[in-house]
Amino acid sequence: MKLGAMQDWPLRVTRLVDHAEREHGGREIVSAWGDGSVTRTNWREVAAQARRMARALERLGIRRGDRVGTLAMNHAHHLTSWYGTVGMGGVLHTINPRLFADQLAFIANHAEDRVLLYDAAFKPLVETLKPQWSTIEQYICFDDGEFAQWLSAEDDDYRWVDGDEREAIGLCYTSGTTGNPKGVLYEHRSTMLHALMEVTPDVFGLSARSVVLPIVPMFHANAWGVPWAAPLVGCKLVLSADYRPQQMCDLFRGEAVTHSAGVPTVWLGMIEHIERTGEDLGLLQSVTIGGSAAPRAMIEWFRKRGVNVGHAWGMTETSPIGTCGAPPANWDEMTDEEQLDYVARQGRVPFGVELRIVDDEGRELPRDGVASGQLQARGPWIVQRYFKDEHDAADADGWFDTGDVAALHPDGTMQITDRAKDVIKSGGEWISSIELENCAVGCPGVAEAAAIGIPHPKWDERPLLLVVRAGGSGVGEPDIRAHLSRHIAKWWQPDAIEFVEELPHTATGKLSKKTLREQFRDYRFKDAEAMVGRD
Amino acid sequence: MKLGAMQDWPLRVTRLVDHAEREHGGREIVSAWGDGSVTRTNWREVAAQARRMARALERLGIRRGDRVGTLAMNHAHHLTSWYGTVGMGGVLHTINPRLFADQLAFIANHAEDRVLLYDAAFKPLVETLKPQWSTIEQYICFDDGEFAQWLSAEDDDYRWVDGDEREAIGLCYTSGTTGNPKGVLYEHRSTMLHALMEVTPDVFGLSARSVVLPIVPMFHANAWGVPWAAPLVGCKLVLSADYRPQQMCDLFRGEAVTHSAGVPTVWLGMIEHIERTGEDLGLLQSVTIGGSAAPRAMIEWFRKRGVNVGHAWGMTETSPIGTCGAPPANWDEMTDEEQLDYVARQGRVPFGVELRIVDDEGRELPRDGVASGQLQARGPWIVQRYFKDEHDAADADGWFDTGDVAALHPDGTMQITDRAKDVIKSGGEWISSIELENCAVGCPGVAEAAAIGIPHPKWDERPLLLVVRAGGSGVGEPDIRAHLSRHIAKWWQPDAIEFVEELPHTATGKLSKKTLREQFRDYRFKDAEAMVGRD
Repeated sequence: MKLGAMQDWPLRVTRLVDHAEREHGGREIVSAWGDGSVTRTNWREVAAQARRMARALERLGIRRGDRVGTLAMNHAHHLTSWYGTVGMGGVLHTINPRLFADQLAFIANHAEDRVLLYDAAFKPLVETLKPQWSTIEQYICFDDGEFAQWLSAEDDDYRWVDGDEREAIGLCYTSGTTGNPKGVLYEHRSTMLHALMEVTPDVFGLSARSVVLPIVPMFHANAWGVPWAAPLVGCKLVLSADYRPQQMCDLFRGEAVTHSAGVPTVWLGMIEHIERTGEDLGLLQSVTIGGSAAPRAMIEWFRKRGVNVGHAWGMTETSPIGTCGAPPANWDEMTDEEQLDYVARQGRVPFGVELRIVDDEGRELPRDGVASGQLQARGPWIVQRYFKDEHDAADADGWFDTGDVAALHPDGTMQITDRAKDVIKSGGEWISSIELENCAVGCPGVAEAAAIGIPHPKWDERPLLLVVRAGGSGVGEPDIRAHLSRHIAKWWQPDAIEFVEELPHTATGKLSKKTLREQFRDYRFKDAEAMVGRD
Repeated sequence: MKLGAMQDWPLRVTRLVDHAEREHGGREIVSAWGDGSVTRTNWREVAAQARRMARALERLGIRRGDRVGTLAMNHAHHLTSWYGTVGMGGVLHTINPRLFADQLAFIANHAEDRVLLYDAAFKPLVETLKPQWSTIEQYICFDDGEFAQWLSAEDDDYRWVDGDEREAIGLCYTSGTTGNPKGVLYEHRSTMLHALMEVTPDVFGLSARSVVLPIVPMFHANAWGVPWAAPLVGCKLVLSADYRPQQMCDLFRGEAVTHSAGVPTVWLGMIEHIERTGEDLGLLQSVTIGGSAAPRAMIEWFRKRGVNVGHAWGMTETSPIGTCGAPPANWDEMTDEEQLDYVARQGRVPFGVELRIVDDEGRELPRDGVASGQLQARGPWIVQRYFKDEHDAADADGWFDTGDVAALHPDGTMQITDRAKDVIKSGGEWISSIELENCAVGCPGVAEAAAIGIPHPKWDERPLLLVVRAGGSGVGEPDIRAHLSRHIAKWWQPDAIEFVEELPHTATGKLSKKTLREQFRDYRFKDAEAMVGRD
């Protein structure tokens, strides 16, 4: 028997939209569509539509815990579908349309999605995959009035289901490692605590006055959590289905955007555009750059324009914020150069995240800014176990191995020094070099293949494929590309294929990527600017 | 069986000091003492000392759940004792030394405090009360090296006890209502969520760069939560045992204070001092004013000096933040006058608090800025049940009746319009008019008495006692004051006693305070400025 108590109040994310509806109901949600048109709604309307959707899902027979997939860019309908799904106890599965077909088939089946909500732009993809998707019963298009029509039949007096704050709300697959993609199952509580942390001054610093334009897809770790954090403070949310720089600049100015977030590739495109056209960023106060390391010149560019840069690090498994580079206590005493050094590192942990680095034997290394080791994280929004996995992803003490290699500085900042996972980071998306290699060696005439990431001015990294021909084989680049195209997404195609006599191996016979990266350190793609990217 | 999971990570407040130690260990904690001296420590040292204290408490035989009392002003030893107590599973009972002797005797016994930590300044009070305190086994003075000596025998390698996040950590009695003071039992979770809310931009807006000087005693709803919020962001904390304006101004400038908080009476004293001496507030960016309504002129005074004013409302039962007046979305479009009107109201709820107003029959009233009703609150840091009470303080739907009467405006702001509870607010402390009346009628020759609050330029309100003499009695003011002085604290003495022929009553025979307040609306104390306050 307790001697007294504060109130029970489960941390359910439906409270976020309830709060925004009640206290900030008229605050706008702006959607900029692929055709350049702009529509407006607000938190009151989003909440009402979400309640209609919760009822509509129940009418379809969707039950608590069932997965509802979305294959969509950023817009208010997509936002509505998040709150509608979690409001009736469903689990929102945000599918990344940039995955290749085999992965798309795998994850929707693995998730056992029962409904798929999709953008008209992905209709061809949906039609291609339908025969392989075995659990989806209902397909609803967000566009052409289909989604709105579906909701219009329902009343908006639905009451969110109650329940435990540890219930699942979201599923997000990550394809960075070998094997099949793995699903991270977000919970009410983890997402709520992440949202609370995210609005604090040392992370995004959001208030009721903020206008936020996330240039991060909603299928990327929930657009870095922004659609959950925004209603917590009642800020204005600007969503864009399209990241063309001119559309972005129009939104920045036209909607008086104060806060934005995106991967370096996005900012690179914006900066080039602004430098060329003389456009500006309007009232922008703060950008968060993450996904891969922000180049020093990019940080400088923003700083010269009076925009604060928060350099963030995280991953799907960390919800995603693991660190963010807000100014330290002694900021004002630092020289410009020192400030730049500080921001160029990956930031420091907010309350809720613990980081450590360990050596290959799992021994913790000092936080001296010199030692470099495997980066491990723990905290309430860090993964414990992947979806349907039989083993924990975190060890007995809660440490999750991030796959990154880093140094921790005495001032608390973290610096990524290398990557343990064998992935190539292209414009914020991961390309698995091992998948690429496995696929390449499947091509007749290829004896061995290795894929490594080469720095790229726009995409951060792009794959270079190194091929050893089988004895006597005359296999050429077109043969290999044709073979790859049957198995991988177009944007996974290497930017170059080079034929070599042999590849370096480690003592245990594995490909030595470390040696390869050293050998090709100065390699650059010819005419990288003109390369076709994935857009 | 769950299909996947994020990590378990109980919201235990010990994580706050762990975080500050690990990530902001060198950030200073400054203590300004009653004698004008200043000492410095930091989060690393406070954490280490708290671990020593946890062990020292265990050595005394203190067990999980036992109450540890403090009778102290603001300083680093007091802060250390908070984390040390909760770290070993104890419950911190912060005693308000301004309560009168009977109350002080009652609450320590009711709490069953086993240890009392006290400031040397309160030694006479402790000696007076010792005979009445029946559960306290150990008395430890913070000063004269006694506290430091006690800890010095222990190692600092203690590991905080683990446990459920709903376990109690703090006990704070509130004396605003009739009858004995009631204890609010704070929990790890409620305090943690309150701290997370408090650092967000629309409440205190604290970051690692902030320097916070709370001019609120640590026994007042945990200094409004500041000592829990500060380590969450690793800000510098400035604690002062003394609120003399010159000492405050020296600290503001000398320590580069950016954020402060206090009741109107404190600010009034500061403003008078600054106007008279030409002192300034240094780098102060933001003040939070709460406890009672901030006068419009005070808000203007700060605004003219470029200091943001957050007008807050709350009470011990709300941990205490219920509302805070951060700028709304349309702030920049408001005129100066509109901004002032906005700030003069009591602010709006942060995420986590819900407010409603109801009429006498419990029917919810509209949020139209016109209707006025009993203000009710619910949320994770609102009281559910007072300590050792047999009934909930909140109703079946979680609504806690605050005792205030308020209007809710369409923009979400709350405005206190009257007070349902029969209390007089003097300098941020409550004087129970009913206690005062009960005490007065105990004086021979007094037939009936009524106490009401009269506006006071320094203390916000002070008591006026209205007395009806018993037939034929010649009882005079000195008799009544002498009688009162034996039962109440000195600062509860009415600023004036007026003799009247009769007092107004309601239909049910109760004293009609409403009629009295109307009758004495224009009453002012003679020479109020020269009145002796409680300092």
